[in-house]
Amino acid sequence: MLKIVLLGGGNVAHHLFTQFSKNPKIELVQWYNRSIDAIQKFGQHTAVIDQIENLKEADVYLIAVSDAAIAEISAALPFQGKFVVHTSGNTSMDVIDSKNRTGVYYPLQSFSKNKPIQWNEIPLLIEATNEEDLQLLNKLAKSMTEKVYTINSQQRSRIHLTAVFVNNFVNHLYSIGADLSEQEQIPFEIFIPLIKQTTNSLDTTPPIASQTGPAVRGDHSTIEAHLGQLKDPLHKEIYKSITRSILKTHGREKL
Amino acid sequence: MLKIVLLGGGNVAHHLFTQFSKNPKIELVQWYNRSIDAIQKFGQHTAVIDQIENLKEADVYLIAVSDAAIAEISAALPFQGKFVVHTSGNTSMDVIDSKNRTGVYYPLQSFSKNKPIQWNEIPLLIEATNEEDLQLLNKLAKSMTEKVYTINSQQRSRIHLTAVFVNNFVNHLYSIGADLSEQEQIPFEIFIPLIKQTTNSLDTTPPIASQTGPAVRGDHSTIEAHLGQLKDPLHKEIYKSITRSILKTHGREKL
Repeated sequence: MLKIVLLGGGNVAHHLFTQFSKNPKIELVQWYNRSIDAIQKFGQHTAVIDQIENLKEADVYLIAVSDAAIAEISAALPFQGKFVVHTSGNTSMDVIDSKNRTGVYYPLQSFSKNKPIQWNEIPLLIEATNEEDLQLLNKLAKSMTEKVYTINSQQRSRIHLTAVFVNNFVNHLYSIGADLSEQEQIPFEIFIPLIKQTTNSLDTTPPIASQTGPAVRGDHSTIEAHLGQLKDPLHKEIYKSITRSILKTHGREKL
Repeated sequence: MLKIVLLGGGNVAHHLFTQFSKNPKIELVQWYNRSIDAIQKFGQHTAVIDQIENLKEADVYLIAVSDAAIAEISAALPFQGKFVVHTSGNTSMDVIDSKNRTGVYYPLQSFSKNKPIQWNEIPLLIEATNEEDLQLLNKLAKSMTEKVYTINSQQRSRIHLTAVFVNNFVNHLYSIGADLSEQEQIPFEIFIPLIKQTTNSLDTTPPIASQTGPAVRGDHSTIEAHLGQLKDPLHKEIYKSITRSILKTHGREKL
């Protein structure tokens, strides 16, 4: 049994709590939060506390708080030499106070309060300063998912940048698509099967090999027609910048 | 029974043939292609021909050829006053020679040769010059899917533009993501669960309400850090143009 103490009361902490409480390989020793109100109702499942000086012995102290609060809470821990990890994708391991052994336990997913998480489908990205601690995190992660990756802080920062492209930016393109179609009384739902087909093809084919559309064909007359249809200058800019990149990537004539 | 003649020998024609030959509501009278070689082997299932003057009587003549060839093949039809439709998303209905009644039967999906099509999940977008023909197309479409939409040529052109954003451009962002991650020896597969989560949320939530990332938070220091990490000027341009649009859409300070 791995003894875990959980620190924090937000979405990630709640989803981790739900998993830990039903995971037979894990003993959740305590759940700490600055405000007891957010976690009080789980007191029948684990010891909930709001006094950091009352933390008990554990194999891993898991800090699941906002990025900005990690340094402060790690400095406030009333012990040293123990294993303390944060769960942030966008924060270096060094932010954790060096009086303890440090690590990162980062689930690559967006968490919303009411949506249950299928942990066995989520990649867990782990990092630690020493090999023994890394093995411990690996054991913890493997108890939740097969998808465990050892990733250093530089790679994690690149992952964050990549996720902006493949997740945040993609979602904004969906948003523009919804705009464009609704302007012509077209229900956006008609695009969902096409969108899912593209996403599903990632399982088997690298995206560069699945590229379709006017730019990859070098079809400049369609490109010009599309630019003529777009009214919003920001949409035009996006159309041009992505089209230029597709043309270049696929060796077509410049825009 | 609806009597159909299919014209063309490409991907769309093949997928339509497969559906028609097992659809109890449809009688596939003939399959015409300029070159008999491409369709010869299906001769045991339907009459295959390469002489356009031998076309028989049918309720609908379905032209599934490349956009550029629609006008020519429709002009070459050896009859008039019959109902002739094309299957192109990007071509006006008027391109069909007006000696016949015209319509459009457009499946909104990408077709690849070897991937079977789940027709009942694909939206079929129909258009016709008169109401009776529209009802006929509606009956044909409903025999294949519940997702039937009546869409005029102007809307269809907007659908094509929208699909470039939500499908072609999205796929290119995946391609850039694969590039960025592989530069740091990160397997791109780790992003797939996150990508699918975003896509699946379209079923229940408008994309504008699911926007996450630095731009929607107005987090300019992360935006600057990301721009510093990007080496390719085309990637920088894409990052800037989409970020500007997210900032504007969500009322944040300009880049």
